[in-house]
Order: sequence, then structure tokens, then C-alpha cells
Amino acid sequence: MQVVIGVDIGTTATKAVAFDAAGRAVAQASRAYPLIQAVPGMAELDPQAVLAAVQAAVAAVAAALPAGAIAALSFSAAMHSLLLLDQDFRPLTRVMTWADIRAAKQAAALKQRPDSAQLVARTGVPLHPMTPLAKLMYLQEAQPALMRRASYVGGLKSWLMAVFYGQWLADYSLANATGLFNLHTLDWDPAALQLAGVTASQLPPLVDTDTLLPALTPAAAKAMGVPPATPGIIGASDGTLANIGVAALAPGALALTIGTSGAVRTVIKTPQSAPGGKLFTYYLAPDRWVVGGPVNNGGIVLQWATKTLLGNTATVAEAIQLAQTAPAGAHGLVFLPYLGGERAPLWDAAARGSFVGLTRQHTKADMLRAVMEGILFNLKAVGALMQPMVGTRPTLHAAGGFAKSEAWRQMLADVFDCPVVVPQSVQSSALGAAVMGMKRLGWIPSLDAVSGMLTMTDRYQPGQDAAVYRALWPLWQQVSRALAGTYGEFAGFAATPGMV
Amino acid sequence: MQVVIGVDIGTTATKAVAFDAAGRAVAQASRAYPLIQAVPGMAELDPQAVLAAVQAAVAAVAAALPAGAIAALSFSAAMHSLLLLDQDFRPLTRVMTWADIRAAKQAAALKQRPDSAQLVARTGVPLHPMTPLAKLMYLQEAQPALMRRASYVGGLKSWLMAVFYGQWLADYSLANATGLFNLHTLDWDPAALQLAGVTASQLPPLVDTDTLLPALTPAAAKAMGVPPATPGIIGASDGTLANIGVAALAPGALALTIGTSGAVRTVIKTPQSAPGGKLFTYYLAPDRWVVGGPVNNGGIVLQWATKTLLGNTATVAEAIQLAQTAPAGAHGLVFLPYLGGERAPLWDAAARGSFVGLTRQHTKADMLRAVMEGILFNLKAVGALMQPMVGTRPTLHAAGGFAKSEAWRQMLADVFDCPVVVPQSVQSSALGAAVMGMKRLGWIPSLDAVSGMLTMTDRYQPGQDAAVYRALWPLWQQVSRALAGTYGEFAGFAATPGMV
Repeated sequence: MQVVIGVDIGTTATKAVAFDAAGRAVAQASRAYPLIQAVPGMAELDPQAVLAAVQAAVAAVAAALPAGAIAALSFSAAMHSLLLLDQDFRPLTRVMTWADIRAAKQAAALKQRPDSAQLVARTGVPLHPMTPLAKLMYLQEAQPALMRRASYVGGLKSWLMAVFYGQWLADYSLANATGLFNLHTLDWDPAALQLAGVTASQLPPLVDTDTLLPALTPAAAKAMGVPPATPGIIGASDGTLANIGVAALAPGALALTIGTSGAVRTVIKTPQSAPGGKLFTYYLAPDRWVVGGPVNNGGIVLQWATKTLLGNTATVAEAIQLAQTAPAGAHGLVFLPYLGGERAPLWDAAARGSFVGLTRQHTKADMLRAVMEGILFNLKAVGALMQPMVGTRPTLHAAGGFAKSEAWRQMLADVFDCPVVVPQSVQSSALGAAVMGMKRLGWIPSLDAVSGMLTMTDRYQPGQDAAVYRALWPLWQQVSRALAGTYGEFAGFAATPGMV
Repeated sequence: MQVVIGVDIGTTATKAVAFDAAGRAVAQASRAYPLIQAVPGMAELDPQAVLAAVQAAVAAVAAALPAGAIAALSFSAAMHSLLLLDQDFRPLTRVMTWADIRAAKQAAALKQRPDSAQLVARTGVPLHPMTPLAKLMYLQEAQPALMRRASYVGGLKSWLMAVFYGQWLADYSLANATGLFNLHTLDWDPAALQLAGVTASQLPPLVDTDTLLPALTPAAAKAMGVPPATPGIIGASDGTLANIGVAALAPGALALTIGTSGAVRTVIKTPQSAPGGKLFTYYLAPDRWVVGGPVNNGGIVLQWATKTLLGNTATVAEAIQLAQTAPAGAHGLVFLPYLGGERAPLWDAAARGSFVGLTRQHTKADMLRAVMEGILFNLKAVGALMQPMVGTRPTLHAAGGFAKSEAWRQMLADVFDCPVVVPQSVQSSALGAAVMGMKRLGWIPSLDAVSGMLTMTDRYQPGQDAAVYRALWPLWQQVSRALAGTYGEFAGFAATPGMV
């Protein structure tokens, strides 16, 4: 038996999953690390802790496999990470993750620039504090001395590749998520670099996502418990690889993930930007670009509603059960899920949540149902931006924690008014990385082979509630538009000394 | 000891309270009757049930007093009631109360008329299904045969005066609330009568509010247990008399009542209409006109929030206690209280309630605090319409069930940013009626004498929270304006077959 280990380096844990040539997960391990949030807006990782966790996760999987089984490692990593390195590639900082929003001021300034639309069109990344572009601008202002000491600047995966394989590289996919990458030239964007105050020589050289790194350093091989000759495929970002992992590669296939947060993504052949810069466009592989939108407000919102409406000891499953006792449309109650600000489709960090349309007849069950529906309507709003690419009736490939709930899945089909398929439960990004590795190793002719590896455990069609949601959808959008102009005032109130 | 019995004929009960010349309540009794809501929108009373209750309440008070103590009865009644009578003044219908909204279509049609602004300016009554004007238009459409049989048309009190005193009359104050009365001529408005499809000869002759009716019919006297020679003062409407009852007669005094619903009222010298027809202008006494706005969403909204957020067995007192644990401004959470549509300040029966500004930090305590604040902000919005009449810093005279709560009273002073006084707990409308009777009997020189009768049990000044509410007030208004345009869509959704 030969396997490729997909290594998915996430924000709170690294998962290593060994897949055989048929796409079966034959061994897996996960190692967690703490997200460091010492001051407001900070969300950092200790690079040494991540390094140790990646090695430990791979070692645990390797230990469960027969000798000689591991044909390659292939890497997925979270987007938008940044760390500064000295001349010997030693970290000068912790890893700023996508969740770090201390560059809010810089992102806002970028949006005000007259060339902001062109910048987004060239880089494919909405202007947001999550981007390394904004983060570097923040560091130039907040820590100029530190920035002067940085010989190299890159993402977490680039640093790990340097440690594991002795090569300082960035794959097109993760580079594309920095805001510094030109998706037409497949090279760093000179104007963006100038804004960030870094030079191309500080950044990793760029390579395609299936680039094979031949041999591990002796230290890494030892820590992972694998032969030094185990090659690595550099891979791509977790978001883009997840589209492989749920077999959403064909035209009209829309990958939808709801975990704590959520995302909607599809794959197109040539890069194109959404009007208004509201979607990202990220490289996955030659002629495969992932277009989509990330949302902040996924399952975490239902967790809040459960705790707030049902009490601290209640479970989300109980909340879903109670919500099911209310009819579709929750007796005409609209919920906007923007409890944590929002990325797509609003791109407004000041956005807030709302229940709108309350009457004296409304119950807790209605409120919980409206919360579930509101989370999905917001994802539908992101999907609506992608209609030019996927058409009016795509097939949804659902994944993430919510996809375990029968009730959510049917509601998803009804709200989106299109078929939903649920791939068998797997680590989508790890599988995506592994499949990319298999392609590189020649095990499969194309990434599309993933379709043959995945069983769709369930299929859903829009039911009778779809008519209710078709009627509610314009109202939901109207409420969303009506309140969009108030969020700045909420931020102003919150900023008044002593107010909040 | 001599007393005047104030008889307050309300929507669900009649209260009779005997007051001595010093304004002390020396005996009181209450008799309830059911509000009949057999079909959606209906809210009727059985006139015979009310008649019996009024007589029984007076009889109960009379029985508690020494013989010869009762100098007069004086009558307060709820506004906007309507019943049809035959040629012998026998009821052909039940009493349609202010809460009956079956004339919604007719009220909407009135608003669409090119002369609607002039109509409101002449009659002093916002165009609303509650008005007898709209109700008569509804009856002309719904029950034309019944309308043709009606020899007489009037309010509940006019019919009771005919039964008790043998005189078919309407006081200016209640007449003013019909939408058929011209407040400049103090006579029925011919154009309004034409819209309603009735003639002045069908309506009661109009008299001033202190008109004295000399003697009860023998049957009424017997039923009430009082001498036939007990005179009656016709009195006024409950809302206008309440301003006397809380001693809010002076310029700059703003009466604020929150029971189930609520109202804000002040007294001015000459009638004037608010811009946009958003306030009523009702006659009280010569050179005393009550201007204000009624709101649907008072304590009933906090009852809903208590039940919905804390459970069916929780009490409003518990909700207020929990709300007190949240800071003023509820961490930047705005609540619009329009659970039951709204009269002032929106005059939109389709209005709905909202929580806007939710974050993951918000708790149930914040939500309850926002509910209390939202109810008061809405009353402040009505008060803001009255600023030309009362100035920027009126004194609030608070009454109604909410005025029993220390927490609400202080919040009221803080939200309105002005002093609040709370008259000793009395039946304000019954006291107002009695005081009007005392004036007619020559016991007091002026209605203003009520100030000497009432003790203000508590006085509140704006505290440190007032600054928070000053900052929140523009935001609350902005949210209210932003959502005002969506209520029609909610009504449309609710009207979609099978949707709600």
C-alpha cells in the first residue's frame, strides 16, 4: 500500500491524513496549538509550536503505517499568514494569522485609495486587515525597527518548507492570498510590494502548487519518523484545496463550508474579479482558479444564539431541534448574522447582527429558526455574487460541521433553491492536498479523479419550504441593505468613551 | 363629607372612585367586562355588560359612603368607540372599541386622499382604523343594510348618558376623537360626515365637557343605589382627563403613561396640529387642548420579552432586575419596540420590532435592557414631535403600571434627559373627571387646583446614564428610519398564502 499524507496546517491544529490511491483515509492524526490573543485584534501562533505539531502529526500517522508506505507529503495551509525572518530564516515574530485584525486602519486606508479597485483586480484579494499586504503596512507603522531587521518575509508554509526541505518558496495559491501577488503575471506585484514596503528579494520565490521538493532535512525526517527521501508537494491554500476535497471542480459546482465561519467557492478556468472587489480569486492549479467569498458568521452565530436564548448548558443540537418546531420563514422574522462583523458579502468589519420583523407572536423557536436561516441567507448572498460564474442553479457541495445536521442540509437546499450533495465525511483540505500530490506522482491523470474517490453520502432537493424562502429572499436583502448604512454609527457609538 | 365620584369607563373595566374636596380617594370599586375578539381585527364590548358594570361600580362605591355624600358623578371614557342605535336609542351593534382595526383598508384609503392633510388639520385626529370616521366607512361597506337601519350613531358614553340621564349628547372631548369633529368650529365637520356617510342629525348634539346633567332616570338611580337627584358632569375622554389626574396642565409639563400601551401628552391653549398629522389634538376644557401621541408598544412588549427570553413562568420584575445588570446602552444594542405595529410616531400598522446591533458579546441581560430602553426611546420620539409645544426640557409626569418600578423611572429621566415626577398612585382619569366635576360644582376655582391635591411621591433627575443615551439617541433614530421602509415588505410576505 502506498499513501500520500495530506498535511493541513490550520489555525488551531494541524491534521495529517494518509490517503491511499483510491482516496481512502487509512490513518490520521491531529495536533493542536493555542491561538495567541493577548491584545485586542491580535491572533497569532507560535511558529515553533506549529512546527512541532506538524512534525508530531505526521509522525503519528507514519507510525500507524507500514514501512515504505509513504510516497509523499503534500501541504495545505491557512491563508493570509505572515511572519518575519532574519537572514538565517529564523523567526523574528510570531505568525500573524488571518484572524489578526490589527491592520484595520491600514485596510481602511487602502480602500480609500483612488487605485483600490485596480489593486483588487490585479491581486484578487479584497482589501481587508487579514491580508499580509495590510499587515505589512501595519508593521511598518507599529514596528519600523523590527521591519528593518527582517531579511525575509513570508507565510507560515514558506517558513515550514524552508525548515523541512531547505527551500524558501511560496506556492502561487498562498502567495495569491497575500494581496502582493499579480494573478495575471503569476509574480509579485511591484505596486503592491511598494505599498507594503518590501522588496521581491525579501519574499519567497514563487512556484506552482504541484512543485515537488525532493528530500527532507535529516532533522525534519527524524522528527516526522519518515525517510529523508520522502518528497513533499508544496500544495496550496486550505480554501482552494477544499474545493478538490469536496469534488467541486466542475462548472456549476459550488462548494459551501460552514464551520465556525463559512465560505462559498467555485472553480473557474481564467481569473476574473467580482464587481466591487467582493470576492477573492485564488490560484489552485493551471487553468483552475477558485473564486468565492469567506464569511465570518457561520456556526459561531448559532452557538451564540443557543447560549443566549437557551442558556449556557444547552447544545446546538437542542437549538436546531427547537428551531425545527417553527415553520420556514419563522413567521416572517429576518435575522442578519453579522455578530462578528463580516467579510463577504459586505466587507464591513463594523457590521452587526439583527433580528428584524418581530411581533408578539414570535417565540424562541422562531428566533432560533431565523438565526439558522439568516446564516444561510448570508451565504446565499455570497453565492448570488457568483451567479455569473455558476449560473442560477448550481449544485452545492456542502461540508463543515453544519453538514452533519440533517436539518441544516435540507434548509440549505431550500434556501439556495438548488440541489445539495454531501461528500462522505473527510478532511477536505487534507484530501485536496493529497489528491494534488497523487496527480504530481502520476497516480491519477487529473485532479478531477477525486470525483471517483468520494461517495456523496446524501443528496437533497429543494422541498416545499423553498417557496417560502423565495418569497423571503427579497425581504432579507432589503433589510440587509437598509441596515448597511447604520454600522458606521454603531462603531462610532462603541468608540465613544465609556459607552460600551 | 361630600364627594364627587369619578367614573372611568375603560376598555376592559369601569372604575368608580369617590374623591373628597381635597382630592383624597375615599372609596373605589372596579367592574370588568370581556373584550370580544371573535374574528381578526375585532375588539368589541357588549353595551349591556358595560352598562351593568358602570352601575354596579357606582353602587359599590355608594354603598361604602354615608348617605348624602355624593355631590355628583363625573364621567371619563375611552376614546374612539362607536355603536349604532335604533330610533329608540337601543343598540343595533356591540361597541367597536379603539382596539378594533377592521377599518384598516378605509384608513389607508383616507391617507391616500389629496385632502388628507387638511382633514387631519381640521379634526385633530391622525387617520387610523381606530377612528369612528374610518369605522363608519367600514360599516358602510361591510354592513350597508345595518347602516341604513341606524337612526343614531355615537360613542359608548353618549349612549350611557342617554340611559342614565335621558339626554343624547356628546362632550367636545370625545367627539373630538371621532375624526368627525372640527376643532376650530367646535361642531361636526360636514366634509368628514360626508365621508362617513352620516348626517349631523344622527349624531349626538355637542356640549362642553363640564355640562351638568341634573337628574338620573329612576331606573339608573335605583341600579346605582344613589338618589335620582344626583347630577352628572358629562366629562371628557380618559386620555385628556389623565392630564388633569397627573397634574400635567402647566406649560412644559409632559404627561407620560406606560401601561400595556403608552402615551405622551401635553396641554396647550389653542389647538394646533403637528406637522405630518402625527399627533392628536383633543379638546379638554376652554383654552385647554391636549396634544400628544398614543403608542401601541408599552409594557406589553416587556411582557413579550420576559416570556420569550426568560420563559413563561418569569415575571416582568425579574426581567427588569436582570436588565439592570447590563449597562446603559446595552453594549450598543438598539431595540425598536414595534411588535404590535405602531401608532405614534410612525402611524404604521405594519411596523415590526427589531434588535439591531448584536455582537457575540451580547447577553440576555443586554437584550432585556435594550427592550426597556427601546420602549422609552420610542416614547421620546413622540415627545420630540411635541418639542415646539413643550420646549427642550419639559418635566415628565409619569403614570401607569411602569411608574411603579424605580428602575424604569430613573431610566425615563435618563433617556428623556429631563426631570421626572411621579404623582401618588391614583386612577388618573377618574381623578381628572372628579376634578372637572368639582370645578363645575364650584368647589375649586380652576382645574389647576389639582396640583394642590396631588403629592409627587418621587422626583428623579437625569443621572450619569443620560450621557450614554444622548449618544445613543441619534443611532436609535437612524435605525428606526432605516427600517421604516421595510415594513410594507414584511406585510407583503405575511400576506403571501401559506407564508406565515
